[in-house]
Amino acid sequence: MAETTLSSAGPVDPAIITDLVAASRILARHNVLDAWGHVSIRHPRDPQRYLLSRARAPALVTEGDIMEFDLHSNPVDQRGRRMFLERFIHGQAYRARPDVNAVVHTHSPTMIPFSVTGEPLRAISHIASFLVNEVPVWEIRDVGITQGLLVANNEQGRSLAKTLGDGPVALMRGHGNLVVAADIKRVVHRALYTEVNAQQLAVALSFRRPISFIAPDESQDPKRLDDAWEVWRSEVAKDL
Amino acid sequence: MAETTLSSAGPVDPAIITDLVAASRILARHNVLDAWGHVSIRHPRDPQRYLLSRARAPALVTEGDIMEFDLHSNPVDQRGRRMFLERFIHGQAYRARPDVNAVVHTHSPTMIPFSVTGEPLRAISHIASFLVNEVPVWEIRDVGITQGLLVANNEQGRSLAKTLGDGPVALMRGHGNLVVAADIKRVVHRALYTEVNAQQLAVALSFRRPISFIAPDESQDPKRLDDAWEVWRSEVAKDL
Amino acid sequence: MAETTLSSAGPVDPAIITDLVAASRILARHNVLDAWGHVSIRHPRDPQRYLLSRARAPALVTEGDIMEFDLHSNPVDQRGRRMFLERFIHGQAYRARPDVNAVVHTHSPTMIPFSVTGEPLRAISHIASFLVNEVPVWEIRDVGITQGLLVANNEQGRSLAKTLGDGPVALMRGHGNLVVAADIKRVVHRALYTEVNAQQLAVALSFRRPISFIAPDESQDPKRLDDAWEVWRSEVAKDL
Amino acid sequence: MAETTLSSAGPVDPAIITDLVAASRILARHNVLDAWGHVSIRHPRDPQRYLLSRARAPALVTEGDIMEFDLHSNPVDQRGRRMFLERFIHGQAYRARPDVNAVVHTHSPTMIPFSVTGEPLRAISHIASFLVNEVPVWEIRDVGITQGLLVANNEQGRSLAKTLGDGPVALMRGHGNLVVAADIKRVVHRALYTEVNAQQLAVALSFRRPISFIAPDESQDPKRLDDAWEVWRSEVAKDL
Repeated sequence: MAETTLSSAGPVDPAIITDLVAASRILARHNVLDAWGHVSIRHPRDPQRYLLSRARAPALVTEGDIMEFDLHSNPVDQRGRRMFLERFIHGQAYRARPDVNAVVHTHSPTMIPFSVTGEPLRAISHIASFLVNEVPVWEIRDVGITQGLLVANNEQGRSLAKTLGDGPVALMRGHGNLVVAADIKRVVHRALYTEVNAQQLAVALSFRRPISFIAPDESQDPKRLDDAWEVWRSEVAKDL
Repeated sequence: MAETTLSSAGPVDPAIITDLVAASRILARHNVLDAWGHVSIRHPRDPQRYLLSRARAPALVTEGDIMEFDLHSNPVDQRGRRMFLERFIHGQAYRARPDVNAVVHTHSPTMIPFSVTGEPLRAISHIASFLVNEVPVWEIRDVGITQGLLVANNEQGRSLAKTLGDGPVALMRGHGNLVVAADIKRVVHRALYTEVNAQQLAVALSFRRPISFIAPDESQDPKRLDDAWEVWRSEVAKDL
Repeated sequence: MAETTLSSAGPVDPAIITDLVAASRILARHNVLDAWGHVSIRHPRDPQRYLLSRARAPALVTEGDIMEFDLHSNPVDQRGRRMFLERFIHGQAYRARPDVNAVVHTHSPTMIPFSVTGEPLRAISHIASFLVNEVPVWEIRDVGITQGLLVANNEQGRSLAKTLGDGPVALMRGHGNLVVAADIKRVVHRALYTEVNAQQLAVALSFRRPISFIAPDESQDPKRLDDAWEVWRSEVAKDL
Repeated sequence: MAETTLSSAGPVDPAIITDLVAASRILARHNVLDAWGHVSIRHPRDPQRYLLSRARAPALVTEGDIMEFDLHSNPVDQRGRRMFLERFIHGQAYRARPDVNAVVHTHSPTMIPFSVTGEPLRAISHIASFLVNEVPVWEIRDVGITQGLLVANNEQGRSLAKTLGDGPVALMRGHGNLVVAADIKRVVHRALYTEVNAQQLAVALSFRRPISFIAPDESQDPKRLDDAWEVWRSEVAKDL
């Protein structure tokens, strides 16, 4: 397919790009992102665009790797760069959810056991109370597979976004998850604590007793994440 | 609310402040404290005051971040600094327990499964024998929630201190724990080995056999913790 | 036994040797290889030869440690160097499988529980979909033991290769595994994700629910591993 | 008690002392030794003496910390140095076992669950085949407690050595273990792989299937541990 060139939505504040790069490296450092997986943000100037690295391991992403895409996940100015096959996850999440400005796709380790057993993943910890409702599990076969379980086109991405609904996280059966939030700090918090809560729930389940999940009126979005962001940023500071 | 200014209980030996900062960083390094959570000490000159960092991730706390509070958790000299919402945990613990000179609030990972299942947390290891009695679980709904499961006022803090009773640790359902001790080294030891013992007990429970818990006459408070403190301090030395 | 000297199949591109050394160190860094275990490649110029380190811990292997062997695991030019006793695993895998150009033998931690219980090890994650078929377990006693459970001669190596069949991995009861692939990057990916998938499956099994394994038509070999290789290489770069 | 002075069995090759220090730091680095626990060797010149650090965290032990003791655990030349309370574990192990030249006492994490449940700890992995027989569990109450579960005198040490029998490891209920071997490298290997095997066995047990333990004729002591020692030493080299 020949490269097409769209006009860019315009330059982005370098501090915003640095936060995006930091998010990628923070999640890699916490083993939420492995050698694959990716983080994006909606373009600050144009809601019809998003910013995502060229295909590269999350721990190595730099400012220069960030590319611009439209919401069908066409690159604005590809310049021969290889792109993540699964970028359609991002584009369709932004299309379906005007409230979402940051998206992560991970294979974080404890997503797999929950995604292949039907064991409900829900919050047992205040800090993960964004998971107050059971996390839905997306079955790619409902829309049809084309490249194993990978999300390789807009139709599959749209189906995943539909399963996500208006929630913060969807599990992808045998694959990983999709995490969304209103901003980059929040999406890092959610991706990290979805994994932590899943690990804790696996321990709680091993006790074979009834479990007290977080109740709807106990759920509370963190008002600010600046203190957490400060320490997470500091952990990857030497690489930025 | 306008800032009020109380008169300070006076200067504190810098070595004592450095130990407080070290405690915060040690517990962060051992993953007992995450990006939130906090450590305090009672003011060495005035039992009606305590010392706690301004709102900041425990791994980053420095000497300059330490603030003075009265036991209702009013700041002595706020100077615009943001404070931990949950400081009431500390103030009320000091009020209720004249024997306590150091307090930690953590979300250490294995507290959650025990706190939401009713599975009793008790010592199975000599080194955690301060947990010889079953750790009580505090249910914030008994006093009423105001900000999710967070301890956001003195009434909630008092209720938690009541559940703590005269013990070393209380679990907070779906949230974390409160750990108290007579001194800073001891509270670090307790916060760390409450987590270690919980992890070991989870493994022991998985064997589905009767468990020998530490008996009352086997429980022994460590006489000194200087050797442990030496190595824990050394682990964070480069940051102090 | 006196040393014999075979003629070498010729020099090898230093970049290929560096990749072999990197593979050894990457797998050590990810705790897939412990102080023992080994990685080899088929000789690029002669399918009847393979390249393997002298006996040395995988984390310490250097370019100068690589030796050349024939497929009966005789050294080409021993020069007094100590050899891995279990090199017969490699020689016989290359003999049995012309499609294989890279071989790893590991004691990766979660291989042991699956190998001694008969609990089937199969892929539950897309990224480990090379394990779409149940991994066979080799029982050394079927061919006879000579040095505990170690593979100490060609007959034992041949028996293991027979159990491997045309698959990517065989478990060795009470010992570890054999992992094979068409190239060095792929064998690193497989050794690493056999362990990750085993850990995830152990968690899934603890839920005591039916498990959705990866279906045959969902299995997909990664088209390229260059991005993963870039980050894995970077993790050991300071040592190369 | 006044200090007494015994005459020393004579100077020890500094390389031997360095290996003892390295052993302490290696086991600390692998989390087999925590802030407490200790490693000793029998004196190379006098079987009635052993060498053990003054009371200090294992990760910090240096050559200058090593003291000489007789087999009743009296110090040869105390010079005011604080001693490990539990040194009687070492003295009595050397008294009971002329074949033993190196001793470790650990609280390695997974010893506790096995020690308090009666779940048998045995080898499921070739590399831990020194545990071919079920590891005995010592109950300190059979001889009587004096300081919690600590081994605080020769009588308790003798009782523990009796439970050890002619084996390599004894569990201490609710406390940790005693590991012995003919030399320092071997005792490090055994302390490390007792923990690894225990972790693997806990996973295997979770599958609720019959387990194939290592059979007596499959057990094999490693002929040499120099390669493992080389990499373990390298991990702590910067501190020696």
